[in-house]
Amino acid sequence: MPERAQNVLFIMADQLRWDYLSCYGHPHLHTPHLDALAADGMRFNRAYVQSPICGPSRMCTYTGRYCRSHGATWNGVPLRVGERAMGDHLREIGVQSVIVGKTHMVPDRAGLDWLGIDPASKVGLRHAECGFDPFDRDDGLHPNTGYNPEPAYNRFLREKGYNSPNPWDEHANSGLDAEGKRRSGWFLKYSDLPADIPEALSETPYMTTRAMEFMAQAQASGAGPWLCHLSFIKPHWPYIVPPPYHDMYGPGDVLPPVRSEAERATDHPVFKGYIDSRICRSFARDDVREKIIPAYMGLVKQIDDQMGRLFSWMKENGLWDDTMIVFTSDHGDYLGDHWMGEKDLFHDQSARIPLIIRDPRAGAQRGAVSDALVESIDLAPTFQGFFGGAPRPHHYEGRDLTALLHGEAPKLRDFAFSEYDYATRPAREAIGNAQEDARLWMVRDARWKLTYAEGFRPMLFDMESDPDELLDLGASDAPAAAAARARLTEALFAWTRRHHNRHTKDPQWFDDVLGKEPPGVLIGYWDEEDLAADGLSFMPAR
Amino acid sequence: MPERAQNVLFIMADQLRWDYLSCYGHPHLHTPHLDALAADGMRFNRAYVQSPICGPSRMCTYTGRYCRSHGATWNGVPLRVGERAMGDHLREIGVQSVIVGKTHMVPDRAGLDWLGIDPASKVGLRHAECGFDPFDRDDGLHPNTGYNPEPAYNRFLREKGYNSPNPWDEHANSGLDAEGKRRSGWFLKYSDLPADIPEALSETPYMTTRAMEFMAQAQASGAGPWLCHLSFIKPHWPYIVPPPYHDMYGPGDVLPPVRSEAERATDHPVFKGYIDSRICRSFARDDVREKIIPAYMGLVKQIDDQMGRLFSWMKENGLWDDTMIVFTSDHGDYLGDHWMGEKDLFHDQSARIPLIIRDPRAGAQRGAVSDALVESIDLAPTFQGFFGGAPRPHHYEGRDLTALLHGEAPKLRDFAFSEYDYATRPAREAIGNAQEDARLWMVRDARWKLTYAEGFRPMLFDMESDPDELLDLGASDAPAAAAARARLTEALFAWTRRHHNRHTKDPQWFDDVLGKEPPGVLIGYWDEEDLAADGLSFMPAR
Repeated sequence: MPERAQNVLFIMADQLRWDYLSCYGHPHLHTPHLDALAADGMRFNRAYVQSPICGPSRMCTYTGRYCRSHGATWNGVPLRVGERAMGDHLREIGVQSVIVGKTHMVPDRAGLDWLGIDPASKVGLRHAECGFDPFDRDDGLHPNTGYNPEPAYNRFLREKGYNSPNPWDEHANSGLDAEGKRRSGWFLKYSDLPADIPEALSETPYMTTRAMEFMAQAQASGAGPWLCHLSFIKPHWPYIVPPPYHDMYGPGDVLPPVRSEAERATDHPVFKGYIDSRICRSFARDDVREKIIPAYMGLVKQIDDQMGRLFSWMKENGLWDDTMIVFTSDHGDYLGDHWMGEKDLFHDQSARIPLIIRDPRAGAQRGAVSDALVESIDLAPTFQGFFGGAPRPHHYEGRDLTALLHGEAPKLRDFAFSEYDYATRPAREAIGNAQEDARLWMVRDARWKLTYAEGFRPMLFDMESDPDELLDLGASDAPAAAAARARLTEALFAWTRRHHNRHTKDPQWFDDVLGKEPPGVLIGYWDEEDLAADGLSFMPAR
Repeated sequence: MPERAQNVLFIMADQLRWDYLSCYGHPHLHTPHLDALAADGMRFNRAYVQSPICGPSRMCTYTGRYCRSHGATWNGVPLRVGERAMGDHLREIGVQSVIVGKTHMVPDRAGLDWLGIDPASKVGLRHAECGFDPFDRDDGLHPNTGYNPEPAYNRFLREKGYNSPNPWDEHANSGLDAEGKRRSGWFLKYSDLPADIPEALSETPYMTTRAMEFMAQAQASGAGPWLCHLSFIKPHWPYIVPPPYHDMYGPGDVLPPVRSEAERATDHPVFKGYIDSRICRSFARDDVREKIIPAYMGLVKQIDDQMGRLFSWMKENGLWDDTMIVFTSDHGDYLGDHWMGEKDLFHDQSARIPLIIRDPRAGAQRGAVSDALVESIDLAPTFQGFFGGAPRPHHYEGRDLTALLHGEAPKLRDFAFSEYDYATRPAREAIGNAQEDARLWMVRDARWKLTYAEGFRPMLFDMESDPDELLDLGASDAPAAAAARARLTEALFAWTRRHHNRHTKDPQWFDDVLGKEPPGVLIGYWDEEDLAADGLSFMPAR
C-alpha cells in the first residue's frame, strides 16, 4: 500500500442523474465542491450501473458482480447468504469497511436459517449489512407503515425535540402549507414546500456528520486502514428539502424535457408499457416536473454543500492526503425525460451515473476526464487493488480502474452491460408476459447502446449522432444500425457465456492442475513401462 | 403422497455408457434384470447429463441445476456452500435421503470457514455429503497416495482378512498374473486378470448389500419416507473385475469401434486436441480396447446380477410396490469410439446415459420407451414431485418427469443442454487458449446435436441421418445444416439468458408484488385526491 494513501471514502448519492452536477454540464445547478473534487481527480463520462434500480444496483456495486450472478434482481429480493461483498473481501486483507447510510440490503433470512447461522452473530450481522460493519445504517425510507420504522436518525431527531412517532416522515419529509397544514413530501404537489426541519438536522448533513464521526474515531484510535461508505438517501424521493434549498431553484431553472412525440408513439411493448403507466404519466406532466425538479436540484445542492463541509474538515484534520474519495450514484432519475419517471430503462438519465474518483496516489491523473466505459462493479476491485489486495477474479466481475486513474490505459473494455428484471413492474402487467421473460439487458459500446428485450425487438441508439436517445433504431433497416444490433447482440451472448459462479477455486488452480490427474490416479497407461516412458516415476506401491 | 409409494431407490452406475445394456441394444451383453426393470417402467432414449464428467455431472444431478449455475465445473471444484441439493429439499418435506456409495462431492471448506460453519456440525456434514445423510460414502478411488485412503469398504475388507494398508487398491483393483505377480488394475494391460478378491466381497455387491441394510433398517424402525442413493463406482476404471466376470467376455465380444478416418483428420482444434492427447491415443488402440472392453462388460454384467439380487430381495421384503426405482449413470465412456477415451465431449458415447424409471404409482407407464429429451437435472424435481413437495423452480432448473412417466405428455422441452469446462484438460494445453475460453456447450434437439465451442466453429451432427455422429456438419454449407446451427445457437443464447440464481424469492413472490410498491411508499401521486382517485385509501398517518 502506498504511504499516505490508506483509506477510502466511498460516497454514493441515491437516484442522482449523471447530468445534475455542474462538472457534468448542468447549466443552473452549481456544484463547486464536487467540481473541485473532479478537478483533483478523474471524472468518468461513461459510467453505468449494472441495474438501474436501487437494490440490484447496489448489490452489484457492493459485490462487484452482475445481477445475473448474485441473483438479487429487484428491490426486496434478498442477497443470497454466501455472496461476498467488498467489505468481506477487504476484511480479509485487514481493512475495516463501515456503512454510514443506505445499502438497500435485504438479508437472506431463509438462507441463514437453513445454514444454521444466527442472524445476531457476527457473520449474520455482516450479511445483513452486505459485508459492511454498521456504523449508522439508514435506508432512508421510513413511512408510517412499519417499513424500517426506527432508524438512528429518528432517535437523533427525537433527541433534538421532535417527539413524534416518526419524525423522518412527519418533519424531515413533510412540510407546512400556507394554511399551516402538514403536507406529506410523498405527494408531488408539495415538493415546493420547505421541509419542516432545520437544514442542519436534515438527513444529508446528519449522515455527513456521522461519517466525520467515524473518521474522527478511527483517527483517534489509530484504526485503519478503513473504507467508509457514506451513502446518502437523497436526492431520491420524497422530493422535499428544507430551507434555504426549498426555493433556491424554481420553475425557471427546470430544463425542457428531453423527449419526442415519436417516442410517445413507440411501438415497443416494454417502452410503451412504461410510458403508459401511471407513474410515468405522472412524472411526464409539466406541473409535476415544475414541482419536483427544483426540489431535486435543492437536494443535490445540499449534498454539494455538505461535500464542501466534509472535504474542508478532512483537509483540516489531515485526512485529505490519505484518502481515496469516490463520488457516485446508484442510478439516475428520468424526471419526465422520455415520458418516463423514476428509473428502470437504460437511457442515460437512468443507467448512467456521475463518477468522480480522486486517487491520492502518486501518478494518479488530476482533472482528467475519461470516456472509458466503466461499470459500477469496477469499484470493488479498484478498492481491492488500492489496498494492495490480490485480485479476486473468481468473485469480482468488475475491473480494477487503477490503470485508467493513472493514465496507463485508455479503456478497460469494449462493452458495458446492465440488466433489468421488470417482473414486478406495471409494464409487465400491461404486456402480460411471463415473469421469466420480463427481462432487459443493455449493451453499450463506445458509440451505440442496445437494449435487448426478451421476446421483443431490441431498442438501439446511436449515441454519437443522437446523444439524447430520441431516435430508436431498433427496427431500422440502415446497414450501420443492423450491423450494430448484430455486433452488440453477439457481445451480449458472449457475456452470458462467461463463468460467473466458479467461486470455489481461483483461476490459478485451473492452471496449476492443467493436464494433471489427482495423485495416484493413472488414466490410460498400458503398463509400468508406458508410465515410465511418459517420464513419470509414480506407480502404485506394491 | 400416493399410498404404497413412499420411497425412492435412486441407483447410479459410474461411467456406464447408454448402450451397454441389452435393453438399449447391446448384442452381447445381456442384462436381464435391468431389462426387466425397463419392462416394468419407462426407458428413456434421449437422456443427457449436464456435463460429461463425474463431479460436475453429479453436482448437476444432485442439485437439479446446471454447471453454470452451481459453479462446480470440474472434478475437484467444491460445490459452493449454500447450494441446495435434492437431499436438502427433500429433508424439508420430511424425506430422509441417504448416500450409499459415490457422490464425488468436494466440500467448500473455505466457504464453510468464512460463514463460521463447523465442518463437523450437522450442516457441515450434510454439505460434505452434497445434501445426503451418509450411510456409507465411498467415492471409490483409493490409490496409495492419500486420496481418500480409508473408506468403510477398506475396513470391511480388513475385517474379512485382507490385512493390507489399502485392500481396495491391492486386492479389489489388482490381479495376480500368470507368474503370481501382483499387477495393478490401473494399468490397461492387466484388465483381463481376475481381480484378487472373491466376487462376493467386491465393491458392487458390497454396496448393494449396504443399500439393502439401509432399507432393512428403515423398514425395521418404521422410518420413512426415504430416498436411498445407491451409487456404484463401477464400471468406471480401474477396469478389473473378479471371477467369474473377468473372462465372461473376450475380444470376440468387443464391438468394432465407431470412428472414421475423416474424424481423425478433423480440423476442429478442440476435437483434435482431444484425439491427439495421450489418453485418447491410448484408448483408441485396438489392443487396449480388447483388454478393457471385456472387463468393462464384466463390470456391467456384475451390476446387472446385483440388480437381480437386490430386486428379488426388495420383492421378498415388501419393498417393491412402495418404491420408485431409478437406474442411470453419471456419463458414458468412449472406449475408443471417435478415437477418444474417457468422456468429456458430447458424443452419445459420453453425454448420453441410460435412464430407466420404474414408477410404482397408478397410471405410470409400464414398458414404455420415451424419445423425449431428458436431462439428469430432471431427477431431483421428479423426486420432489413424487414425495408430494411443492415445485422449487427458483432452485431446480430441471423438470418433473411425472407427466412423461404417466403418458400425459410426449415431451417436456425442445432442447437439452450440457456443458464442459476443459480448462484443466490436455486439449487446452495443446490449443493454448485462455481458461475462460476453454468452454463447450451441447445443444440437442429432436434431430440435431450442436457443440458450441468458445472461440472456434461449432460441431454439428444430424442424429437422424448420422446417428453415429461421424459426419461433422459444423462447417457445412448445406442449408439444413446452416439453419440447424443458427437455430441451436439461438437456443443456447436463450438458455444463457435465463434466471438461474434468483433463489431467495420464489416466482410467486414476483407475481404477488406485481405492480405494487412497499407499504407506505407512494410514487408519483400528485396529492391526496390523486391517491384516492386511484382507489387507494392509504395515506401517511397525519
